[in-house]
Amino acid sequence: MIKTLEWTDSGVRFIDQTKLPTEETYVTCTSCEEVAKAIRTMVVRGAPAIGVAAAMGIALGVKNSRAESVSELRRELDRCCALVGATRPTAVNLFWAIRRMQAKFEALGIRSLPQLKQALIEEAQQMYDEDIAANQAMGRWGASLMPASGGVLTHCNAGALATCGYGTALGVIRAAIALGKKIQVYADETRPFLQGSRLTAWELIKDGIPTTLISDSMAGFMMRQGKISAIVVGADRIAANGDVANKIGTYTVAVLAKEHGVPFYVAAPFSTIDLDTPDGSRIPIEQRSAQEVTHIAGKAIAPEGVAVENPAFDVTPANYITGIVTERGIARQPYEESLAKLAAVQAKVVL
Amino acid sequence: MIKTLEWTDSGVRFIDQTKLPTEETYVTCTSCEEVAKAIRTMVVRGAPAIGVAAAMGIALGVKNSRAESVSELRRELDRCCALVGATRPTAVNLFWAIRRMQAKFEALGIRSLPQLKQALIEEAQQMYDEDIAANQAMGRWGASLMPASGGVLTHCNAGALATCGYGTALGVIRAAIALGKKIQVYADETRPFLQGSRLTAWELIKDGIPTTLISDSMAGFMMRQGKISAIVVGADRIAANGDVANKIGTYTVAVLAKEHGVPFYVAAPFSTIDLDTPDGSRIPIEQRSAQEVTHIAGKAIAPEGVAVENPAFDVTPANYITGIVTERGIARQPYEESLAKLAAVQAKVVL
Repeated sequence: MIKTLEWTDSGVRFIDQTKLPTEETYVTCTSCEEVAKAIRTMVVRGAPAIGVAAAMGIALGVKNSRAESVSELRRELDRCCALVGATRPTAVNLFWAIRRMQAKFEALGIRSLPQLKQALIEEAQQMYDEDIAANQAMGRWGASLMPASGGVLTHCNAGALATCGYGTALGVIRAAIALGKKIQVYADETRPFLQGSRLTAWELIKDGIPTTLISDSMAGFMMRQGKISAIVVGADRIAANGDVANKIGTYTVAVLAKEHGVPFYVAAPFSTIDLDTPDGSRIPIEQRSAQEVTHIAGKAIAPEGVAVENPAFDVTPANYITGIVTERGIARQPYEESLAKLAAVQAKVVL
Repeated sequence: MIKTLEWTDSGVRFIDQTKLPTEETYVTCTSCEEVAKAIRTMVVRGAPAIGVAAAMGIALGVKNSRAESVSELRRELDRCCALVGATRPTAVNLFWAIRRMQAKFEALGIRSLPQLKQALIEEAQQMYDEDIAANQAMGRWGASLMPASGGVLTHCNAGALATCGYGTALGVIRAAIALGKKIQVYADETRPFLQGSRLTAWELIKDGIPTTLISDSMAGFMMRQGKISAIVVGADRIAANGDVANKIGTYTVAVLAKEHGVPFYVAAPFSTIDLDTPDGSRIPIEQRSAQEVTHIAGKAIAPEGVAVENPAFDVTPANYITGIVTERGIARQPYEESLAKLAAVQAKVVL
């Protein structure tokens, strides 16, 4: 099993996703600052993984703290929350994780400093376990949506590497295959950061799942040829009305899906659903460095001085989305109602 | 002015497009075999440039021939035609050029061998001049279709580097800018071969034309944001019904254009229109090496052993196309009629 991230006695250990697929190396972050940097530089990425990494980073910062009182420890907690909160703006799981760690701290009441530290470490570890369980639940719900046989397209990496394990979109595919469905995965390479070719293809091949890699621009032609029976992607933030922010290019895939009558599914844990954001127009879209577009593996592929746009995400309006698979069930249009209904379900009942 | 290809006393000289944008180097092919290899390895690419390169390759082979009779020279001509004809199957300009060189030879009648050789060299050079004139005529026709100001998206490279000069799609943009239109070009990088980032951005920046480079997957988001007022691309083969084979990803752009109500234009010389092919389903689509997708600049970006699809082209059905700009005028739906009408126009009248 791929260990995307892991709490260890010496710190938070990550598989270095910037080095895959040619090198499988691990880095251990020994401070909250190092964890924040790992998130910012995409050593770890994927909304659910970012959420748990942030929680572990906060737990690590609190564990390392020399605070001598609860109020000093709270200041250290707040500092760590601000640190990880400033890394990436779009994935709402990051802010969900921060709020959860803060709420946990406040709920603990008066305890000894070692007890408080231990409780925050345990909270982060519980978030890790819950994430894997949520993915497995999403797989159970989503597997029925996958074709008995045929091509399933995915964009970016919403797999084990984007989560604590199993994956969201790839979890749905894994569960469908476990049911005996004959699925051929088509993986968009996902420029500019190449999460599809570097990460999705890598983890699916490791699992022996038939995978065909394509350039992003080939998705339309594949659909036109009837090779794609369904699409499933992850999400970085889902607004209350069902608009989905996900890796740049997702919207293009959704438009193509509509044109070809191919169902388009999003799989994400409830921590990705942001009921405080009414619609996609309010979701902040991170702009990343031009260098990601103009260079690959350190080599220039564009002339010097060219202007570049590099939004890391786009927003797919809810009306393009056939269904949103969560650990609590599948939401369908109209999402305002279906998401609100799922939000009212006690998570523990289904986990 | 960029010299994409050129007849010289020592052979056919090409700017090496596999080295751009980081190196501007030139190679001189001294045999028909070398020209065929330059076409196959994409030292020269772009349907109109491939056509003229093929003609020059044939002229070069004939020039070098040690044939001692007209029938021996005809065999050498046929051998050269077969050589260049086996390089790339989709761009119909290649076969147009071969037929034209063969027809020229037959039309010459009984002449001395030096006269025959010289006439074929002159025919290839005339095709070169005609190509530039055709592009300038396309520019005059197409400029009126461009917005007075705004973003114009292009895919792949249909510029000076895809032709003998000026370009087809980029010729239309150049002509519009010459009329004073304020155009911001959005260039799709065009994976896997990166003609957009390596070639289009390079030649537009050289001309001082404002250019923004985007990953292919960003085109949908740019259109959704209202940044794209028109789209213009080139073509590798246009069927009698107006279906257009062009660089892989063109179809995806056309679907996005339809969804956003953005006009989608194709600019191509008449040599790209293949009235013998009734529709796009009959156009052969070249499959290129998986390595183009799995490696960039010699570095692996995908795990070993992954399956890959790498169609070099796709087909955009005629109903997605707002207009086809040729050197003889603009064809509009229904294309069966409008293309046939333009085909009947004497080319020399408008050139």
